[in-house]
Amino acid sequence: MRTLITNIKELHQTESDSSSINRLAGADMATVPKIENAWLLAENGLIHSFGYMDQLRESNADEIIDATGRLVLPAWCDSHTHIVFAAPREGEFVDRIKGISYEEIARRGGGILNSARRLNDMDEEQLYDQSLERLQKVMAQGTGAIEIKSGYGLCLEGELKMLRVIRRLKEKVSIPVKASFLAAHAYPAEYKQNKEGYIKLIIDTMLPAIAGEGLADYMDVFCEEGFFGIPETERLLEAGWKYGLKPKIHANQLHYSGGVQTGVKHQALSVDHLECVGEAEIAALLGSNTMPVLLPGAAFFLGIQYQPARKIIDAGLPVCLATDYNPGSCPSGNVPLLLSIACTQLKMTPDEAINAVTINGAAAMELENEMGTIKPGKRANLILTNKISSLAHIPYDYGNNPVYMLLA
Amino acid sequence: MRTLITNIKELHQTESDSSSINRLAGADMATVPKIENAWLLAENGLIHSFGYMDQLRESNADEIIDATGRLVLPAWCDSHTHIVFAAPREGEFVDRIKGISYEEIARRGGGILNSARRLNDMDEEQLYDQSLERLQKVMAQGTGAIEIKSGYGLCLEGELKMLRVIRRLKEKVSIPVKASFLAAHAYPAEYKQNKEGYIKLIIDTMLPAIAGEGLADYMDVFCEEGFFGIPETERLLEAGWKYGLKPKIHANQLHYSGGVQTGVKHQALSVDHLECVGEAEIAALLGSNTMPVLLPGAAFFLGIQYQPARKIIDAGLPVCLATDYNPGSCPSGNVPLLLSIACTQLKMTPDEAINAVTINGAAAMELENEMGTIKPGKRANLILTNKISSLAHIPYDYGNNPVYMLLA
Repeated sequence: MRTLITNIKELHQTESDSSSINRLAGADMATVPKIENAWLLAENGLIHSFGYMDQLRESNADEIIDATGRLVLPAWCDSHTHIVFAAPREGEFVDRIKGISYEEIARRGGGILNSARRLNDMDEEQLYDQSLERLQKVMAQGTGAIEIKSGYGLCLEGELKMLRVIRRLKEKVSIPVKASFLAAHAYPAEYKQNKEGYIKLIIDTMLPAIAGEGLADYMDVFCEEGFFGIPETERLLEAGWKYGLKPKIHANQLHYSGGVQTGVKHQALSVDHLECVGEAEIAALLGSNTMPVLLPGAAFFLGIQYQPARKIIDAGLPVCLATDYNPGSCPSGNVPLLLSIACTQLKMTPDEAINAVTINGAAAMELENEMGTIKPGKRANLILTNKISSLAHIPYDYGNNPVYMLLA
Repeated sequence: MRTLITNIKELHQTESDSSSINRLAGADMATVPKIENAWLLAENGLIHSFGYMDQLRESNADEIIDATGRLVLPAWCDSHTHIVFAAPREGEFVDRIKGISYEEIARRGGGILNSARRLNDMDEEQLYDQSLERLQKVMAQGTGAIEIKSGYGLCLEGELKMLRVIRRLKEKVSIPVKASFLAAHAYPAEYKQNKEGYIKLIIDTMLPAIAGEGLADYMDVFCEEGFFGIPETERLLEAGWKYGLKPKIHANQLHYSGGVQTGVKHQALSVDHLECVGEAEIAALLGSNTMPVLLPGAAFFLGIQYQPARKIIDAGLPVCLATDYNPGSCPSGNVPLLLSIACTQLKMTPDEAINAVTINGAAAMELENEMGTIKPGKRANLILTNKISSLAHIPYDYGNNPVYMLLA
């Protein structure tokens, strides 16, 4: 199957055959390379070649898409989501607006434990159906690779159910799906007085079962004061490594907890959230391969402080953006809107924000050799935009979906 | 033509035949009345009757819509927009992110004068076509009544062109459209040294011409330090009143300018923006019929402080929300997203926010007898939502369009 896209107004994020960009950091994030008036040929789902229209010699295609007036760019790589969940939680949203504290909401049975109860009550089939619907919706908004976490099971059976749903999604859709094992998301009610018991359950029972079925790509921990502290996080990450699961962890959302440093120490692929980033966190990240992943959609939804993206980029580090799509703190997987939030609130430029969800998003899921740039041999997971004036129009035109078509 | 909607999961914002709500203020904004499991009959574009499904006797309809799982509510009334414009301004958006000041952007030919130049260069037909496209897009997001301003002409011919486009839109679409005359949006370059000359041009030349053609419903002024001060605003509002144009003004966006008090003094229908609201502004509004209209989408896009909605509601005043859709400070007319911003950033509850864009939005355009509640005799401009769990799900599920169908 050969698909030829012609008359592309601007082909973005192009990379030559001989280069090999793994991620972009600091000042290198400032530019998204482009070719104007271009063509691109995809063959069997991979990018075959591209160039300027006036040099187009290819015409042997099964399908030709005329992209006059449209931009083409690599599909978004959303490296942090929780889209397998049972039910929305808008009741808690209203309670928070009314000033009821998170602790009080949790006391009333809200929060992660609410999602866990609902998930454990739902059969796998229904959970799969509605998760697939969410996944298809974000694909229509341009998402072409996604990471999905467990963490609403909080028991062996529930975690297995979530991870099996993620595996079925992976088999169903045409985009890469990565699974992270996040039993260490919260302590279930029955282990409130026996935290050590839950840690042991994860390490001794859940991990072998999950690894046995090959259900997870990564090990995740919600490393935060009041959730999983540094010693627990370290034990869990070491246990994950024994099964070949690289860490991708939640860190520094609410406190300067040392989570970033712990992630770096354990060679985490990424440390995610990062509302609290100071000199020590930056020093730890510099020189490491760990990707800082910012989730400003959650900060927007909760009305809390945004992540210091400028400080991180200006220190020469890469920044990755991800949606955090989940029913409690960010019920949106809309990447174009995430880009608008990043530009208007975090003061990232449109080019920086787009680099953060393409090549850097790919890197945060170890997909940098398959996704994230327009390069021969990479997957032809591509966004064709509506007829818009420029790349900056995507975050500028906030609240509108710029995606005309996702090729994947 | 009789349209019967059956099996409505929740019919919102219902009002009995005998009541007459003009607007909702203070604690009365806290609730959106609803009927569960309802039907509604529309006849020739008006609401004929509604009730509980188990009491449905009507069946003589030309069209039946099954709304199983869906909510029905009055369409949004967006009382403040500038959707007739020639071109997006994402270049300035990028410049602002890079830290270039508004003054510097203006010096380089940006800002309102940029829009004016582009608009005056564009023929009426093209301006109409692209404005209609924008209008149809916001209708698909649930907008069922809209106000549109002039103000990118800044000369007789340009202002007439804009207002004629608005008139054509009014004739074209099935929703109410109101026009505000906003020549006092900025001083055009050629009057920079002769501000008095521009005021006179508005009062002596433009106003008679516009009133002669019956092109405007309201008189608007950008009342702000550095734009039109209090004395100029007063002269302009008095001149507008002579032609029967009620004021609807821009006030207190950047400064405690006295704009709110001036609007109230001149019996403005609304005072819009209101980032800067203190005790004096609240005192002026209490006891007046002037509607405070908040535009948090612009505050979001510019990354500036949000309007103190809670302070205004808690003082017993009404709050109206509007999008401010315009190419410089808010390139979005997406009301569902506006509701999300109002809830997450201004801490309005979903019910308050929905009252603010239905009955209070109607009041800010003198449409309270036609729109804004579900009441026999009012227009059947209705939103049928997707299958969602509750009204609060609309702002909660941010970035997704909840509208399944706009009836209008």
